Amino acid sequence: MNKQLLFVKRPVGEAGADTWNLVSNPIPEPKDGEILIKQHYISLDPAMRGWMNDARSYIEPMAIGSVMRAGSVGEVIQSNNHPKFKVGDFVSGSGGVQQYVTTDGKGYYPVDPKLAPLPTYIGTLGMPGMTAYFGILEVGKIKEGDVVLVSGAAGAVGSIVGQIAKIKGCTVVGIAGGPDKCKYIKNELGFDGSIDYKNENVRDRLKELCPKGIDVYFDNVGGEILDIALSRLRMHARIVICGAISQYNNKMAIKGPSNYLSLLVNRATMQGMVVFDWAKRYGEGAQQMGMWMAQGKLKSKEDVYEGIENFPQTYNRLFSGEKMGKLVLKVIED
Amino acid sequence: MNKQLLFVKRPVGEAGADTWNLVSNPIPEPKDGEILIKQHYISLDPAMRGWMNDARSYIEPMAIGSVMRAGSVGEVIQSNNHPKFKVGDFVSGSGGVQQYVTTDGKGYYPVDPKLAPLPTYIGTLGMPGMTAYFGILEVGKIKEGDVVLVSGAAGAVGSIVGQIAKIKGCTVVGIAGGPDKCKYIKNELGFDGSIDYKNENVRDRLKELCPKGIDVYFDNVGGEILDIALSRLRMHARIVICGAISQYNNKMAIKGPSNYLSLLVNRATMQGMVVFDWAKRYGEGAQQMGMWMAQGKLKSKEDVYEGIENFPQTYNRLFSGEKMGKLVLKVIED
Repeated sequence: MNKQLLFVKRPVGEAGADTWNLVSNPIPEPKDGEILIKQHYISLDPAMRGWMNDARSYIEPMAIGSVMRAGSVGEVIQSNNHPKFKVGDFVSGSGGVQQYVTTDGKGYYPVDPKLAPLPTYIGTLGMPGMTAYFGILEVGKIKEGDVVLVSGAAGAVGSIVGQIAKIKGCTVVGIAGGPDKCKYIKNELGFDGSIDYKNENVRDRLKELCPKGIDVYFDNVGGEILDIALSRLRMHARIVICGAISQYNNKMAIKGPSNYLSLLVNRATMQGMVVFDWAKRYGEGAQQMGMWMAQGKLKSKEDVYEGIENFPQTYNRLFSGEKMGKLVLKVIED
Repeated sequence: MNKQLLFVKRPVGEAGADTWNLVSNPIPEPKDGEILIKQHYISLDPAMRGWMNDARSYIEPMAIGSVMRAGSVGEVIQSNNHPKFKVGDFVSGSGGVQQYVTTDGKGYYPVDPKLAPLPTYIGTLGMPGMTAYFGILEVGKIKEGDVVLVSGAAGAVGSIVGQIAKIKGCTVVGIAGGPDKCKYIKNELGFDGSIDYKNENVRDRLKELCPKGIDVYFDNVGGEILDIALSRLRMHARIVICGAISQYNNKMAIKGPSNYLSLLVNRATMQGMVVFDWAKRYGEGAQQMGMWMAQGKLKSKEDVYEGIENFPQTYNRLFSGEKMGKLVLKVIED
């Protein structure tokens, strides 16, 4: 049987357990030109909350009753004349929260479990990694000597952003929740400084760590922290708007950045990004990051939980912060 | 005697009449290397409100007791060995709200009253015009066919922004307060559409006039209108943050744009600008705009009031909107 998690109720505010319904259906048969994938891991991302809203966004809202959308990685176990993928291939794509999926392969790409563990392909070598890579290099336009601030710094995207900025010769300060994450980004990932937003005064600490201000702010959180970052911009600073996790569960209008006129004062730029725009260059990003990983310059950390039935609790960790690195759920049953 | 308006009290919220004090002092003598200018007109700009705050900005806050800062245009009536300017020259610079000023000439440039009326040199051929020119071309990066929205559209900057966008082949919609201003920008300046924010529903009208959204929004007002513009962005849209007149008199924190995540959804950019950054290219801007004016493609309108003693009431027109085009005060007494 194929355990599938259906999206059954649009949440208002936080997504409760009644947002989804776990069902069992027969394992589907691939049609002509299709493959059947046995999924090993699915990716949990803050963006999921946005997909649940019935609002115009960068991607279609999820339909009620559909399988919960999620990035995934798994093994091809059947091919019905698929032109590209064969049985035994490992592939990554948007397979959703289910154990088996059939597809014509559109949007799927091959991965090699001998080069990196499978969860890494939905983390550092998948969407979060690509977001970090193209976001900080192409939107943030970092250059050697820049002072770079990143929020959600221990997360799937932020941890890679900061490490890439270090590789490129920047001074990097990360904002994360709690002393463990702060120690991790400083001691294990080599950030120059960390700010524990749960226990420290972010404004004061930022002033202390970046006395001359910041050149680039990579924003994953929005809210109060975006406003504080705006108050510390250097001339011609760039703000990359990648996400706003602090606002995703709002029931009211989200908090706009009161300090946005700092953009005027500092001739600064705030630019939004969606990783899909770089799809044609994912290969380049994966190759470069794979090389950095092989050289020991880039560390990838996945926090893997188990059992498709544990999706709702695991999803909650995205917002409670009770995770370290890329949040992944193992859905294959041994 | 030299009538001077001193800035004597930092306002909280709106600047009342007690913000300034009119004094009379002897006409100063130019020191060696200086000139004495008899000022004809001074420029009134929304930015003045910001200069009154004791806050870090793109320019030093005004000191209490100093002559009120203002752009100006006048005639050199005495030269004490000035290397560049001689008696009879007309010059424009930041002479402040006073009838006479001595200066070493730094920041002053010559103007020709035979080519354009003097008030135009502190309007379309001065800072507001340069702001419009470099803002819409270099920051807004307009190209033929773009849909351009501009707020404060009947004002000194907005009216020029819209006309330049028309010259460049864009579709232009302007937001202004009241039917007279709306008629003016449509009928006299050739905008494609107008929205009267005082009497119309901006959101509905914008949807009607720009059904496919906007490519560029040139923002002079901030607040609610910025939020509405954000909700109508097309992919890769650019927002030029030039000012936020709706927020300048706030006593509380200004309203940040709640819809800023539209930047993410639409891969859009919000960039702040200050005209001083293009100082080296003012000549280019003035020449091009002068040519457009001579060809009848660009119209310049100044609303001239008289008497230095009427500065406070005239200044209030910036915020009440009771003016049409560039607000100018004649300080010379015939």
